[in-house]
Amino acid sequence: MIYEEIIKDHILTNNSKIVLIIMDGLGDIPHPDFENKTPLEYAATPNLDDLTKSSMLGRISPILPGITPGSGPAHLAIFGYDPLQQQIGRGVLEALGLDMKLKSNDIAARSNFATIDSKGIIKDRRAGRISDDKGDALCELISSINEINGIKIKIKPGKEHRFVTVFSSEANELGSLVSDTDPLHDDLPIQKAVGNNKNSQYLADAINTFTEKSLELLKNEHPANAVLMRGLSSRPRILSMRDKYKLEAAAIAAYPMYRGIASLLGFSILPSAESIEELFEIYHKHSNKYDYFYIHIKGTDKTGEDGDFLGKAKCIEKVDKALPILLKNRPDVLCITGDHSSPALMHSHSWHPVPVLIHSKFCGSDASKRFTEIESTIGGLGDFESKYLMGLLLANAGRLQKFGA
Amino acid sequence: MIYEEIIKDHILTNNSKIVLIIMDGLGDIPHPDFENKTPLEYAATPNLDDLTKSSMLGRISPILPGITPGSGPAHLAIFGYDPLQQQIGRGVLEALGLDMKLKSNDIAARSNFATIDSKGIIKDRRAGRISDDKGDALCELISSINEINGIKIKIKPGKEHRFVTVFSSEANELGSLVSDTDPLHDDLPIQKAVGNNKNSQYLADAINTFTEKSLELLKNEHPANAVLMRGLSSRPRILSMRDKYKLEAAAIAAYPMYRGIASLLGFSILPSAESIEELFEIYHKHSNKYDYFYIHIKGTDKTGEDGDFLGKAKCIEKVDKALPILLKNRPDVLCITGDHSSPALMHSHSWHPVPVLIHSKFCGSDASKRFTEIESTIGGLGDFESKYLMGLLLANAGRLQKFGA
Repeated sequence: MIYEEIIKDHILTNNSKIVLIIMDGLGDIPHPDFENKTPLEYAATPNLDDLTKSSMLGRISPILPGITPGSGPAHLAIFGYDPLQQQIGRGVLEALGLDMKLKSNDIAARSNFATIDSKGIIKDRRAGRISDDKGDALCELISSINEINGIKIKIKPGKEHRFVTVFSSEANELGSLVSDTDPLHDDLPIQKAVGNNKNSQYLADAINTFTEKSLELLKNEHPANAVLMRGLSSRPRILSMRDKYKLEAAAIAAYPMYRGIASLLGFSILPSAESIEELFEIYHKHSNKYDYFYIHIKGTDKTGEDGDFLGKAKCIEKVDKALPILLKNRPDVLCITGDHSSPALMHSHSWHPVPVLIHSKFCGSDASKRFTEIESTIGGLGDFESKYLMGLLLANAGRLQKFGA
Repeated sequence: MIYEEIIKDHILTNNSKIVLIIMDGLGDIPHPDFENKTPLEYAATPNLDDLTKSSMLGRISPILPGITPGSGPAHLAIFGYDPLQQQIGRGVLEALGLDMKLKSNDIAARSNFATIDSKGIIKDRRAGRISDDKGDALCELISSINEINGIKIKIKPGKEHRFVTVFSSEANELGSLVSDTDPLHDDLPIQKAVGNNKNSQYLADAINTFTEKSLELLKNEHPANAVLMRGLSSRPRILSMRDKYKLEAAAIAAYPMYRGIASLLGFSILPSAESIEELFEIYHKHSNKYDYFYIHIKGTDKTGEDGDFLGKAKCIEKVDKALPILLKNRPDVLCITGDHSSPALMHSHSWHPVPVLIHSKFCGSDASKRFTEIESTIGGLGDFESKYLMGLLLANAGRLQKFGA
């Protein structure tokens, strides 16, 4: 926490604008089928190349060496929240991902349909990955259980067998220290939820009742004849960007999870759009109203996870092509980076450091010629943990006081 | 500790093989008598050069900037044990170095002969560095003191004036919080051992008796007429590689100290050999039985400490020449590095970062062309503390789960 405290204690305000573009899953490794290049190297990026000349590059490590992050901790770190200290529960992240609103007394559970045998033993924790349509229909069916002991229950379907359950109560405070009903392995019975304090046990009892009632409703279904829950959690108590940095922050993000994380941190959520040009235009439209803009671009992660090297390179080219729109109204500080790496060769998130570019009047420059993984190893920012990025952006924006005399 | 806990909580198991080659004291600095090159630069290393093309390089810092490590902490760090949190006592390290077995209730003391004057004042803490033969003979002489108050005493000679004393008791638990009898400076008397709890005082009393009895036995000897002890310690309580990483680990190391450290961490100790070819063949022979192999090569450190630049370059060339043997049965993850630097110009261990190479299917690659100190400064792994290496190897082996969602 000490770094975060120093930042908080040394914040200045001014009229500067900071824009952070997160190309999700940006970092990559050389691909043998594409001249042993990474998508950043392979893509034609004349505008980024030009920007690099007057920028400083470096590499961020989302968590620590070798640790592959999920989007939650990776984003928290980039916004300057220590991802090891401040964690967001799985249930909350899933709820945010489905665009569900969470009040402070709401508890969210990552939920899914499963297959149990006649003795109640789980045979398939994923219920054969039923179709989205089937999942939607079954969610509709169990949504009839909408209240237990004064606790309101809201269900929203996700992909396949997945859904999110949100518990809320106006009368009683709900505790989130409730154990999973999902044993995490097949061939075990559904677990009884147990709360480790009074408010949590109150919720645990309702969850156990819900589990039984849903068994009854699903008894003629196959393969999805039971419900499992895990990751019970509530909105974390977390300082807003305003309280932490005296910044009015706005998020331009098309995907619910990223809007959700931003909303937890007190960002204003701007209407989003499909194309990158439009995302950048939205920045223009609102640029007078906020100090800090977070623009999220999902394409680089989606293509990385799909192993679609060319798609990832193409998404980078789109960002490059749209860049002049953003630069028409050049922010005082522009940062381009990713939350983590998603190498196309790996079809998944990875632990590899992510290139980062900072452009400002006083950022300096370095020997790097292009914004790529290799060039960023010789960048003037060096290698650092993502949680320090926010401090650098504030510094470049003239928003940090001198430490000591 | 938090990093170690994250790693432990995110371990996956699979069938991957990890091989770690530690070329002891590998790192070096340019030598003015040899074209201002380091041994790694001077040596002809066609196989390492070739491997570098499909590997990522970086540099590890054994402890922290400027800190020169001993072999104990340097190795602990490489195996992922924080060397500042987890320390191995000097007595234990010395005992391991002489291939002495230590049970959990044994206490080992780093011991040596010294010269005292007629008033009992130490005149030479190293007894004029008597010969190994003389040391052996005097150890034999004082070995007649083999029990005091039910505490068994075992002595094993080391080099010159050095030996190790191991205390053990089946009846009583021995405490290791015992002060040194060695005042660490000449012109002072032998210190009384003092224990800071009951079990430690019990041992301290025996040590004081031992000191007196040995004075009697050595009274006609010169210059070695007294015994000093320091670094009293017992086997540390330390998680095994199995408990920490779910890895079956095997050590291939010719020198007792390295076998000893590995054995403390629960490695299986494989029979070792003289030549590097044979060390690599041993890996082949056992490759199906373990997940993780640590191969220790002493030559680079020995030559470095002797100031033998050409000998060090030659040892590197031997490893390079033998490399194809190891690569016949290519492990999923291969890491080549040193535990610390031992620059030939310095004739000693040093604080300089050590080049590290990681080769795996998903390691990526970088701009480096050869495995050298300078090229590793532009390596894609960057600079990091040795204690993070294990996380990177596990990540490359697919043995770490994603952190958060």
